[in-house]
Amino acid sequence: MIRAYAANQAGSALERFEYDPGPLDAESVEIDVIACGLCHSDLSMLNNDWGMTTYPFVPGHEVVGTVGQVGERVTSLKPGDTVGVGWVSRSCMTCPQCLRGDHHHCAAGEGTIVGRHGGFADKVRCHAAWAVPLPDGVDAKKAGPLFCGGVTVFNPIVEFDVQPTDRVGVVGIGGLGHMAIQFLNKWGCEVTAFTSTDAKAEEARSMGAHHVVNSRDDSALDAVAGRYDFIMSTVNVTLQWDKYLAALAPHGELTVVGAALEPIPVSSFSLIMGQKSVRGSQVGSIRTTAKMLDFCARHGIEAVTEQFPLSEANAALEHLGAGKARYRIVLENDFG
Amino acid sequence: MIRAYAANQAGSALERFEYDPGPLDAESVEIDVIACGLCHSDLSMLNNDWGMTTYPFVPGHEVVGTVGQVGERVTSLKPGDTVGVGWVSRSCMTCPQCLRGDHHHCAAGEGTIVGRHGGFADKVRCHAAWAVPLPDGVDAKKAGPLFCGGVTVFNPIVEFDVQPTDRVGVVGIGGLGHMAIQFLNKWGCEVTAFTSTDAKAEEARSMGAHHVVNSRDDSALDAVAGRYDFIMSTVNVTLQWDKYLAALAPHGELTVVGAALEPIPVSSFSLIMGQKSVRGSQVGSIRTTAKMLDFCARHGIEAVTEQFPLSEANAALEHLGAGKARYRIVLENDFG
Repeated sequence: MIRAYAANQAGSALERFEYDPGPLDAESVEIDVIACGLCHSDLSMLNNDWGMTTYPFVPGHEVVGTVGQVGERVTSLKPGDTVGVGWVSRSCMTCPQCLRGDHHHCAAGEGTIVGRHGGFADKVRCHAAWAVPLPDGVDAKKAGPLFCGGVTVFNPIVEFDVQPTDRVGVVGIGGLGHMAIQFLNKWGCEVTAFTSTDAKAEEARSMGAHHVVNSRDDSALDAVAGRYDFIMSTVNVTLQWDKYLAALAPHGELTVVGAALEPIPVSSFSLIMGQKSVRGSQVGSIRTTAKMLDFCARHGIEAVTEQFPLSEANAALEHLGAGKARYRIVLENDFG
Repeated sequence: MIRAYAANQAGSALERFEYDPGPLDAESVEIDVIACGLCHSDLSMLNNDWGMTTYPFVPGHEVVGTVGQVGERVTSLKPGDTVGVGWVSRSCMTCPQCLRGDHHHCAAGEGTIVGRHGGFADKVRCHAAWAVPLPDGVDAKKAGPLFCGGVTVFNPIVEFDVQPTDRVGVVGIGGLGHMAIQFLNKWGCEVTAFTSTDAKAEEARSMGAHHVVNSRDDSALDAVAGRYDFIMSTVNVTLQWDKYLAALAPHGELTVVGAALEPIPVSSFSLIMGQKSVRGSQVGSIRTTAKMLDFCARHGIEAVTEQFPLSEANAALEHLGAGKARYRIVLENDFG
């Protein structure tokens, strides 16, 4: 039996829950959970905001642990390996997306907390390919957030060919943005943080921002017109999109990884003049996750976390829901 | 004196006009006009739609001719060379955009019909770098439209790395779209034409479209969901943008080269799922123009044109304004 914490209906508190995972699939591994990040999408799923939650619902899709059992055809991992698993726990391995190395775009992919139980548990399973080994130098107790939030902001840097000579901006200095700043600083870029919270300016600088712009100050936004090769928006609110498009240099790209509910009104003219783009990016592939982990190990990058014992998951959820997380929450498995 | 046709005020008919161009700049060439394309932006400028027209206004920014005189420092061209010049006639050559080879993004660039006189004339001048030689095999009398309309649709194919194995779509089969179809067919792609005009379906096929989709047929648009790696919109009207975004495959890109007046409402979610992009592109660089001309010569690509004598420029403008051009109009210099 796997011991876990589950919500029995939308919005309810987590309670102790056990389930029988059945025999281990030949291509899967079972991971003994060390710690699991708490991501805002766990809360959205718990509340069934996206209409795809099944109950009892076990959150947790930023899992790090040690391989316990391996399925009979698994050759890439062995018991004792330290691995992590993020938003995706399985993909078909044979569709065009899987075959090009974009397993995270597999239309038949399985989400770690979609129709199955996640990492707020003592064990969790996934397809062996989706259990990505942690390199030496990455702290297993703090690494969970890299597997969803981290790769969400790392992926567009890789995919959209951000250059170390680029001037870049990060909009929103929260759970995603504070990792984006660290990545882009170590990538070699000139990094500007856009934040509406003056109190975060110094923190943003300490994480690697060379400049901070107050995103509520129109004249400050106007003053950076034409400056950036790449801007990443990590927020899920409506921005003054026209000013951010104007802030792009020729060939500049505005990438959204936070989903604002209102559509972005993009003027064709603002894209045509200077060959600009608005792009989206969604988590990342297995190989990009592995690259990210190596990059983190080499540069000492980690999420700024608040650690809770898993048994206090409800308190952690409340802390997150109140907007108090600085910057990511990790739950450490304290099942005896 | 240069003999030309000019409008003396917004919207007025063209009349005979002469002007003294002064001494030839050391880095410029003077071109004896063979023929000049009539582009829709000539009409917009004639009507001062963009508020930047000066009168008397001589249209014409798709000029092909023979180099007559060269300035004293010009080494790249000699009298007798056949060349073309498009929307841009000069750039500063020293700003970051010029230095990266993107002279068409030079903020100090000079437009051929912006604050100076264009190619509806017996002669026209430009900076020598912007007079791009015509390779053998390109018909000078029909090549004018390549220098604005042609490079407008060729540029995104180059800049956005369209692959010969891609499935691509072209929206709007007019002055721009009919050239885009030819380019993409010879590029090796599977090409789908989207048109609201059933009568254009056969023509689109004859130009190289493998498939034609009626853009007013919702179910036809829904049926191609997830299909295209690249879609180019050449129209300046509001489309069912959500359906075109849905028609993109993972990593798919929707590129606009026609400026719709209404902003495109882009849902963040539609970009994030499948890592999609909305991009703009504006004419092209000098080197991309040269590449395009070589590509046209190699593959026998040319605009489908209607030829008028320059002395009938007013009739040609009327034909264009009535939406009757099939597909580009070229005026042949008939000054005696």
